[in-house]
Amino acid sequence: MQTIKQWIVATLVALCTVTQMHAQETTKTLTLDDLIPGGRSYSRFAPRTIKQLQWCGDKYFYVKGDSVWQGKPGSKKKEQVLFTRKELNQAMLAAGLKEVGQLPYFAAPYRDQTVLSFTAKKHRIYYNFRTNKVEDVYQVNGRWANLDYTPTSGMIAYTDGNNLAILNKGNTITKVTAEKDPDIVCGTSVHRDEFGIHKGTFWSPSGKQLAFYRMDQTMVTDYPLVNVAARSAELNAIKYPMAGMKSHEVTVGIYNTETEQTVYLDTDEPKDRYFTNIQWSPDGQYLYVAEVNRAQNESKLVRYRTATGKEDRLVFTETHPKYVEPQQPVLFLKNNPEQFIWQSQRDGFNHLYLYTAEGALIKQLTQGDWVVTDVLGFDSAGQNLFYVSTEVSPLERHLYKLNLQTGKRIQLTTEAGVHHTQVSASGTYFIDSYSSQNNPRTIAIAPTRKGKATELLAVNNPFTKHDVPTIKLGTIKAADGVTDLHYRLVTPSHLDPNKKYPAIVYVYGGPHAQLITNSWRAGTGGWDVYMAERGYIMFTLDSRGSANRGLEFENVIHRNLGVAEMADQLKGTDFLKSLGYVDANRIGVHGWSYGGFMTTNLMLSHPEVFKVGAAGGPVIDWSYYEVMYGERYMDTPQENPAGYKAANMKNKAGNLKGHLLLIHGDIDPVVLMQHTFSFLGACVDARTYPDYYIYPRHEHNVIGKDRVHLYEKITRYFDDYLK
Amino acid sequence: MQTIKQWIVATLVALCTVTQMHAQETTKTLTLDDLIPGGRSYSRFAPRTIKQLQWCGDKYFYVKGDSVWQGKPGSKKKEQVLFTRKELNQAMLAAGLKEVGQLPYFAAPYRDQTVLSFTAKKHRIYYNFRTNKVEDVYQVNGRWANLDYTPTSGMIAYTDGNNLAILNKGNTITKVTAEKDPDIVCGTSVHRDEFGIHKGTFWSPSGKQLAFYRMDQTMVTDYPLVNVAARSAELNAIKYPMAGMKSHEVTVGIYNTETEQTVYLDTDEPKDRYFTNIQWSPDGQYLYVAEVNRAQNESKLVRYRTATGKEDRLVFTETHPKYVEPQQPVLFLKNNPEQFIWQSQRDGFNHLYLYTAEGALIKQLTQGDWVVTDVLGFDSAGQNLFYVSTEVSPLERHLYKLNLQTGKRIQLTTEAGVHHTQVSASGTYFIDSYSSQNNPRTIAIAPTRKGKATELLAVNNPFTKHDVPTIKLGTIKAADGVTDLHYRLVTPSHLDPNKKYPAIVYVYGGPHAQLITNSWRAGTGGWDVYMAERGYIMFTLDSRGSANRGLEFENVIHRNLGVAEMADQLKGTDFLKSLGYVDANRIGVHGWSYGGFMTTNLMLSHPEVFKVGAAGGPVIDWSYYEVMYGERYMDTPQENPAGYKAANMKNKAGNLKGHLLLIHGDIDPVVLMQHTFSFLGACVDARTYPDYYIYPRHEHNVIGKDRVHLYEKITRYFDDYLK
Repeated sequence: MQTIKQWIVATLVALCTVTQMHAQETTKTLTLDDLIPGGRSYSRFAPRTIKQLQWCGDKYFYVKGDSVWQGKPGSKKKEQVLFTRKELNQAMLAAGLKEVGQLPYFAAPYRDQTVLSFTAKKHRIYYNFRTNKVEDVYQVNGRWANLDYTPTSGMIAYTDGNNLAILNKGNTITKVTAEKDPDIVCGTSVHRDEFGIHKGTFWSPSGKQLAFYRMDQTMVTDYPLVNVAARSAELNAIKYPMAGMKSHEVTVGIYNTETEQTVYLDTDEPKDRYFTNIQWSPDGQYLYVAEVNRAQNESKLVRYRTATGKEDRLVFTETHPKYVEPQQPVLFLKNNPEQFIWQSQRDGFNHLYLYTAEGALIKQLTQGDWVVTDVLGFDSAGQNLFYVSTEVSPLERHLYKLNLQTGKRIQLTTEAGVHHTQVSASGTYFIDSYSSQNNPRTIAIAPTRKGKATELLAVNNPFTKHDVPTIKLGTIKAADGVTDLHYRLVTPSHLDPNKKYPAIVYVYGGPHAQLITNSWRAGTGGWDVYMAERGYIMFTLDSRGSANRGLEFENVIHRNLGVAEMADQLKGTDFLKSLGYVDANRIGVHGWSYGGFMTTNLMLSHPEVFKVGAAGGPVIDWSYYEVMYGERYMDTPQENPAGYKAANMKNKAGNLKGHLLLIHGDIDPVVLMQHTFSFLGACVDARTYPDYYIYPRHEHNVIGKDRVHLYEKITRYFDDYLK
Repeated sequence: MQTIKQWIVATLVALCTVTQMHAQETTKTLTLDDLIPGGRSYSRFAPRTIKQLQWCGDKYFYVKGDSVWQGKPGSKKKEQVLFTRKELNQAMLAAGLKEVGQLPYFAAPYRDQTVLSFTAKKHRIYYNFRTNKVEDVYQVNGRWANLDYTPTSGMIAYTDGNNLAILNKGNTITKVTAEKDPDIVCGTSVHRDEFGIHKGTFWSPSGKQLAFYRMDQTMVTDYPLVNVAARSAELNAIKYPMAGMKSHEVTVGIYNTETEQTVYLDTDEPKDRYFTNIQWSPDGQYLYVAEVNRAQNESKLVRYRTATGKEDRLVFTETHPKYVEPQQPVLFLKNNPEQFIWQSQRDGFNHLYLYTAEGALIKQLTQGDWVVTDVLGFDSAGQNLFYVSTEVSPLERHLYKLNLQTGKRIQLTTEAGVHHTQVSASGTYFIDSYSSQNNPRTIAIAPTRKGKATELLAVNNPFTKHDVPTIKLGTIKAADGVTDLHYRLVTPSHLDPNKKYPAIVYVYGGPHAQLITNSWRAGTGGWDVYMAERGYIMFTLDSRGSANRGLEFENVIHRNLGVAEMADQLKGTDFLKSLGYVDANRIGVHGWSYGGFMTTNLMLSHPEVFKVGAAGGPVIDWSYYEVMYGERYMDTPQENPAGYKAANMKNKAGNLKGHLLLIHGDIDPVVLMQHTFSFLGACVDARTYPDYYIYPRHEHNVIGKDRVHLYEKITRYFDDYLK
């Protein structure tokens, strides 16, 4: 559920907008419009930031009003205006382009040039701010997607419908593929964005060769989605391979822009395996591909010769009785094309391993009961690697500098919290944007050697005039009696410990997500804040199966989705009940996607505990879920009939005792509406009575302004039956 | 909404199963399973009947257990067993057929032969009960539909997919059409069953020619229905022409079984008009077709030469500034092929007119402020016509014998109530099955001249041991201040007039339906009975627009659906409020289809009156409804933008104040799910909060066992918010 994961990350970041401390004289109550992304007054309460702050070489720049500002760390010179919109528009007009009404989103594609790129008025533009001239312009058709620029040759790969083409300098077009069947798709992400895949084109270092995915979906079942917003509803069929059913077939092409020939990797049978984590060798002679079998218990890193598409060698193989899940391509050392770094969970935690290009293990670079969550690259000498990990705490993210020779690592971020960092071109400085439970946001520039950080921004609590709840983090033991689980407890600002309050568990529970971190407000969502102030105790527990706690913490759920997660959530409600002010007879639960599955499962499996639930886009039957994610955790329905049966909510429909509201977006392409529709049918058969709501025009979640409506709807449901 | 109308008739008949009188010592409470068709114990409380009672010539027969019984009215001979299942099975075996496990459904296709027909074990069988022999057998493929037998030649027309064929004696097959495009459909009903159309084949009197419909739907928009009951949801596209959009094109073919040639009527432009009420002339030389223009304000009765398909003459034309709606074909007199009877609302009420075959009006046969609702045929001499009308009361149906010469009519049914009658072959006797508010069912045989009826069955009140509500009928004035409207008031058996009760209006409100009649329990539905005993006052009003009150009573709604109907319903709630025991602040409303539209409209237009509503399969936007019904009452959206706008519930979504539950079957092919989905979207935009429920696997209503679930769901909704 990459889609979910991405949504969760985006939403949680957006949601973390509330403060703990409230002044004695506070009087105002926050509304859903204040607290929910998309709300009319939401932006007034979102912590400020510095727009577009990023590196260009070793200087940083950002946007402020109609100007782009630049700063040079370590210099005594003040930040100065790099250029204004007016100056940019002069250059635009001089290049025969139309003016922009506001500054666009810039990228800095080069380490060593004073050029920024952006898209405006159907053009991709490369603007030199030193000379104040547009250096390159490409005309871009609005229909194109997946634009991928390579700075070395200045070409842009793009997709037009199901085919791949290249836009050359001078705006000529080269068609790379010419697939007539729209169900054969080239140049896009494949395998439903699982295995860390998020794009479908890969330029060689020289910019002269282009590797790309080709996905044949002709053998995959059509799934009918319906657009009711049309005058007369229209069919939008998608290809949706369900667990245990026929899957798509992916190959990898390599297009040579000089010979204008495409070679496809000679990958042979079985055709339904996964081709992931594509990487070029520095010399462009080889392509490294992590190939995962359909059973997902074996990953082979294979090196292909790009000239012929033939396999050059099996670099190495990783296996696991449950599943393997490579998510990052090999990373060649900066100054040594004979060595690369590989990320693996093979010792139980995601760590870095140094290999020769041929696959001989040189050494493990990091080790410990914590995980590497990101790798940012090398310094200019290639001696040090920058990475992010959970070493300090699973709740935090810190930047480290690792000496590849000595193995010595230095923690570069010191303040407690979650740090989002960008390292400058040479590796000398980094931008550090961080928050913690009580700090909305601080942004600083700091050296990667010794030296003092320079603070660019310190955001104040935006809620000083409002009542906001108290947020407490802590740990309890999982159902295994051993593992520590992190919880978050959100209580009303004016809590009366002698009263009994209803409580709501906000749950996700599936892999790849972590709801509790030491970031602003500890990740508490706006709705939790709102509900706490309405008089609910809001509780969240990152149960086993969730992210960033290591392989075994996650894969305990394998083949039995819901079982360990529910056992842990019950430990959470035991804890809730132990609080004197929680009414044990008024506990509810809410979650979306995997959290909708958990909500439904908890309501049906433990009606004695959970009285009211709101399940959004819930998985009801894992055999309706897609092949990649579904089979990783559940194997196929043929291989694991008992697991599928136990996790099929339709078989528990008769257990419904409380009030369960199911919610679905009517064009959800991830968890199909078939899940909830069929559950309603099972409840009719079982004569149980859930409630239901549809959000038309929405996919796997309800976003934009309608999200406020969604949470008002859910609020009313809990108010009606739990308050 | 023929589908609706048919459903209403079927359901109301089934629902009328409750008695008014309740003994003093009653103790039991009826459950939804007792009261709702499809309920587990429903059949225990349905009034008994005589199975398959019908005429064969001038003798009647019926099924009792494993025997078919016969009686001869006027004879002193007792009823006797005509044949047993055992005897039938002997004949079946002798004919090389398999035995039947229970007696099948019989038809009596001949006036003068001792032969009954039935379908069993994939055969259509003609069984002579006098000789105890199977006389004819036809092998029938389970895929075939629309079987139409002609006794004169013994051929069976049928449809196989989209094509029409004939099964001849001896089981040879003649293919009549060979359309390759599945969107060209032959031999089925057309124009969505409007204009009284319910079949697509019409045998000539000689049985040698077959007229049939051919409907070209290729130009009609595909509408995607989705079957989620499949492993992976499947598309079931239907053709659904929406108001104002391109409609299908119908032609009429005439197949000559002797020449094996088909002639199509030369009907020319415009192609989207309606070809209705097909009738053969007695000599087979002509076909009479009532042709209605797309605007539905003109109906031409046209006579075609069957040999050439050319128009012979325009017989006559009927027009109306609002709409014309011919629903019955011409009926040739029995012994005079030069005259026919035509039904028309031209004087404001549906009456009978005698015409020459060429279209000269001879005389109006019936007249008055009442309507002819059915014509049953002639006596053997052809001197008298039997018809049913509302002359006694709009709430009743009585059988009349009309002397065509003198115009004198005699009322044949005397007991108050609604009579369902069948006249014997010669017209000497009739079967009279009737009920009235306090009479569950009486079945008698009576002469059509003087003489005494013989009672075959008198059903006792099936609810003597249960509490049942009191039902009262009456009239109030419509919003026009003049018209009498009939209401039905259902109150709890233990009504305390000093208490205040919540009230629920059960509403339909659209044309072609009448909810209140002097039939068993006055048509009160099982749910109304159930709710009354739960402590609700249940109320229904047949407002202007409803059936059997004449043309102007109905067509006042033209171009402004909802306006007059709602004004009348408010008169109904005024009346309710005038009752001392109704709580004016707790009035709810429930209805389905047009009644769902009314429910939604009342909730949104009069939130000060209606606090809780349950709208099933509601029309939300008439531009989403189909061409034939929709344009009759609303014209096209292009012609009547103001009317469509005013009747579009999406424009009133912001008015929602109370609790409105919308319900839809997920494969509803009549009122498409687009209606409620788009309404939910409008409510999201308007930030109002309806509730919603989907019944998977159901079409335009929830029938079968799931209907009990439906009414439990609706009951809980009213209990939650209105009780």
